[in-house]
Amino acid sequence: MKKPLILVTNDDGITAYGIRTLVEVAKTLGDVVVVAPDAPQSGMGHAITIANPIRLHPVDVFEGIEASYECSGTPVDCVKLAQNVVLKGRKVDLCVSGINHGSNASINIIYSGTLSAAMEASLEGIPSIGFSLLDYSHSADFEPCKPFVKEIMQYVLEQGMEHGSLLNVNIPRLPADDIKGVKVCRQADARWVEEFVEATDPRGQKYYWLTGRFVNEDHEPDTDIWALDNGYISVVPSMHDLTNYEALKAMKEMEEIVVEGRGMRVDLETE
Amino acid sequence: MKKPLILVTNDDGITAYGIRTLVEVAKTLGDVVVVAPDAPQSGMGHAITIANPIRLHPVDVFEGIEASYECSGTPVDCVKLAQNVVLKGRKVDLCVSGINHGSNASINIIYSGTLSAAMEASLEGIPSIGFSLLDYSHSADFEPCKPFVKEIMQYVLEQGMEHGSLLNVNIPRLPADDIKGVKVCRQADARWVEEFVEATDPRGQKYYWLTGRFVNEDHEPDTDIWALDNGYISVVPSMHDLTNYEALKAMKEMEEIVVEGRGMRVDLETE
Repeated sequence: MKKPLILVTNDDGITAYGIRTLVEVAKTLGDVVVVAPDAPQSGMGHAITIANPIRLHPVDVFEGIEASYECSGTPVDCVKLAQNVVLKGRKVDLCVSGINHGSNASINIIYSGTLSAAMEASLEGIPSIGFSLLDYSHSADFEPCKPFVKEIMQYVLEQGMEHGSLLNVNIPRLPADDIKGVKVCRQADARWVEEFVEATDPRGQKYYWLTGRFVNEDHEPDTDIWALDNGYISVVPSMHDLTNYEALKAMKEMEEIVVEGRGMRVDLETE
Repeated sequence: MKKPLILVTNDDGITAYGIRTLVEVAKTLGDVVVVAPDAPQSGMGHAITIANPIRLHPVDVFEGIEASYECSGTPVDCVKLAQNVVLKGRKVDLCVSGINHGSNASINIIYSGTLSAAMEASLEGIPSIGFSLLDYSHSADFEPCKPFVKEIMQYVLEQGMEHGSLLNVNIPRLPADDIKGVKVCRQADARWVEEFVEATDPRGQKYYWLTGRFVNEDHEPDTDIWALDNGYISVVPSMHDLTNYEALKAMKEMEEIVVEGRGMRVDLETE
């Protein structure tokens, strides 16, 4: 039987421990191709590189896989280049991104390069998963994650996934024996409250460092934050439709008010 | 009566014609503060600057407004700095981003710095709108947009907006008289198909330019692409929750299969 083709990427860069762990697991399940940033790209969100050329070089940093490339672009660029330049349209069975050093639960999915790479793959019709461990350190211990990461990848390879969907998987920083299981949940409605740190450079010019506090007031047990706080791995099925359907219904009246009420144009076509 | 405080930003940079047009309209409705990128930041998505310091300088490029700043960061950084450093927590009544040179309809909301800035403001509880004109040129004519931009801003100032929501407004490239009205609609399920252009630098090294074709197979009349194709301004109420609620229901079984079925851990807590 043909082995599945698995594309691996991340946002912490190709030398991070997190992606090494993911490659080690992926190669037990299929043929692996890595295309990952040549430098850390955390917080890049769904950025793409349109004003600059992108570099792509083969590298030899993983054992026992089909190929690996480092890329000067963003995580989303990596997925696009993997599909179009490296794999030239070969069918990818699964794209996995991470394992991120640090949480991508709740609103972090919006800022995360790791999850944006997975979303990009999902937009191209590839079942995809972003993995994150709740440990920001460079030398985080990914060993306890491995069996869970493998099971979740295997589940998706076997069961498939709805077209255009991806999974946002976060793993608590706990010994494997203390992880209680998996919760399929929704994104908690939390946010970051910023606190910029001001400093002055040697030429007397001010500059700012972005920093902040994660604030969550959404404590419902169906959320990813609840799952993680209670010792579970959180799995949030996610997608790319940002339409607010409730607001859409409520705002239909705007079609009349904005145009008719102001005497701008009253010859609206009726449907 | 106190005039509303309006924050203006964009992703094409503080010198673009689009933001000049937006400032001209905004100052007829309230007190205006601009914090915008010092250089083009198109395609930055929801990127934030965490590995580098951010610069912020007052500039004097608009007449008759309260203040304007150029910022070395991304559009999302601009909104965060505006709130925290420039306005120091003063209540912002409306954030407007754009007018973008080019479409941000459908899936483009994910890649767009313009819309990500508006989303960041919405996350901070500020009613916000991203405006885009379907003309990519630097010298696009924004004059026909003005009355519509003003009406939509005024509508939101008067009616408010659901907490955490933003509007994605796209304006067809048509003379004002040919614009049929406004459609409140959903994001069409379209995507980009990439076509990288390969080139070689003077040192013989290959590099790539990202390019692509916009492909839409979602032709329903309740979509933004339909509205724009038919001469309407599209207004998509949007938000930051990426949870796929349908997939969530369908995937609940994973909680059992992944953990129990593999003999990893069977002592799942029952609820």
